[in-house]
Amino acid sequence: MPASYAYLGPEGTFTEVALRTLPETATRELVPMVSVPAALDAVRNGEAEAAFVPIENSVEGGITTTLDELVAGRPLMIYREVLLSITFALLVRPGTKLSEIKTVTAHPAAQPQVRNWLRNNLPEVLWESAASNADGARLVQEGRYDAAFAGEFAAAKYGLEALETEIHDAENAQTRFVLVGRPARPAAPTGADKTSVVIWQRDDHPGALLELLQEFAVRGVNLMLLQSRPTGEGIGNYCFAIDAEGHISDRRVGEALMGLKRVCPEVRFLGSYPRAEVDPKDVRAPRAGTSDGEFSAASDWLARCQDGRF
Amino acid sequence: MPASYAYLGPEGTFTEVALRTLPETATRELVPMVSVPAALDAVRNGEAEAAFVPIENSVEGGITTTLDELVAGRPLMIYREVLLSITFALLVRPGTKLSEIKTVTAHPAAQPQVRNWLRNNLPEVLWESAASNADGARLVQEGRYDAAFAGEFAAAKYGLEALETEIHDAENAQTRFVLVGRPARPAAPTGADKTSVVIWQRDDHPGALLELLQEFAVRGVNLMLLQSRPTGEGIGNYCFAIDAEGHISDRRVGEALMGLKRVCPEVRFLGSYPRAEVDPKDVRAPRAGTSDGEFSAASDWLARCQDGRF
Repeated sequence: MPASYAYLGPEGTFTEVALRTLPETATRELVPMVSVPAALDAVRNGEAEAAFVPIENSVEGGITTTLDELVAGRPLMIYREVLLSITFALLVRPGTKLSEIKTVTAHPAAQPQVRNWLRNNLPEVLWESAASNADGARLVQEGRYDAAFAGEFAAAKYGLEALETEIHDAENAQTRFVLVGRPARPAAPTGADKTSVVIWQRDDHPGALLELLQEFAVRGVNLMLLQSRPTGEGIGNYCFAIDAEGHISDRRVGEALMGLKRVCPEVRFLGSYPRAEVDPKDVRAPRAGTSDGEFSAASDWLARCQDGRF
Repeated sequence: MPASYAYLGPEGTFTEVALRTLPETATRELVPMVSVPAALDAVRNGEAEAAFVPIENSVEGGITTTLDELVAGRPLMIYREVLLSITFALLVRPGTKLSEIKTVTAHPAAQPQVRNWLRNNLPEVLWESAASNADGARLVQEGRYDAAFAGEFAAAKYGLEALETEIHDAENAQTRFVLVGRPARPAAPTGADKTSVVIWQRDDHPGALLELLQEFAVRGVNLMLLQSRPTGEGIGNYCFAIDAEGHISDRRVGEALMGLKRVCPEVRFLGSYPRAEVDPKDVRAPRAGTSDGEFSAASDWLARCQDGRF
């Protein structure tokens, strides 16, 4: 297997910074790709061991390109997640003053995060979109724009300086990235895990989604993300990307997934993996009656009832 | 094991008539007992192989003496059920005319079923309760009362004649009886079975009962009876006698029972047995996704996901 990780490029973006927080990247070649589909295809066709892509943004929600790519095509599996706080720096050529800035650039996804700052500090500035934040910085280096919003880490790479840092309209703006590979046995549970799955509705009737969510609720499995995506088969046809608390080897999670598998026309398992940056106090004990030990005890009891030994 | 069936006596009551509809009674000694607890104790202490007692009345609801006896004490198991349509005859000594009847008697449970008939036909009559309908017939034979409400079958036994038959205020009034024995492996499923269970609530919060019932609903198990009974531990403390469609060896029923076992402080399995007098058109196929085959397929799928083979 090639020891390379594909990621959503170019170099010098938040994606690369997030990827480099994974210790295993020290021994991998990191290959920037032009798009999320390109990064995932590199895994599907065996060119890369894994791909690293953004999947959820705390300001904008699920990143639909990534979700749609995982939902369709040859199955892939999520192995790791990384959370990165997103704060922008305003990068300029050395010596540029704030009052001299007439044009700024950045990837369009940056705009909702810097809008208020711009209104308060550069109300007259002209905004033009760049292909990526790193590309915006490069264009500033080349003199095409006066300033770019990007990660502070991009300054050195493009010979720029940060006139302002920690720019973010929303407190705690974070992006979640995932490391995606070909299916294999998921890593053992760590005690603070997450399971991702995509489910399709059989038919759309009142309460249809509620019935599916009850498969989790009745077994005490907490949901962490529910993102609907059109299936492409006409208005009103949706599938749902779901992140649930726990690991596929937890009995309560396994039984919930089997319940969905029975009642949904299709279920796609996307992986069980450790939760990123989890505060130990956020790891709750399973609800009463839903621990693995209680599942085993109930199974023993059922066998005794079926045998008439009670 | 003694080849005798205890039943709620005396002889000549609806209970005996219902019991004799079971073919196996041909080879058993049938022993009338003075009460439901006496009949069940005869089973518990090994004097009788089984006991036959009423458990549910379509006019009055669950028969609480029987439910309370099954809920407490040494575990027993239901093996069979019998439904009997309850219609009364007015029994008199031969030659008595309707206009000569001044006093009538019967078991108090008969009263709601004959009340309208009495108002329309014998508005001035004096009612006195008897220990059983059969006992009422005996008292008419002895001349203590002019007439008794009882099953028509009791007339011959007590030298009486039926002045009127088919007396019943409610259409389709039926009583359900059960044959109860010591725990043993339940008979194999017939395809039209019923499972009886008693569950205790852990605590009483809004939605507590709904949560327990969802254990059945989420697995597509239909409920046929839900009867609350106080636990005797103070106002507001209830247990629930539940009859569910299906057999404990059906995967959907087994999983629902295990779910209850996990979340309830106590669950008492009361048996899986063939439904009485079931019309084939009332036997529904399991809801989509809840057949044994679908449970097996989902279990195989989960194993493949856990192995990374997908």
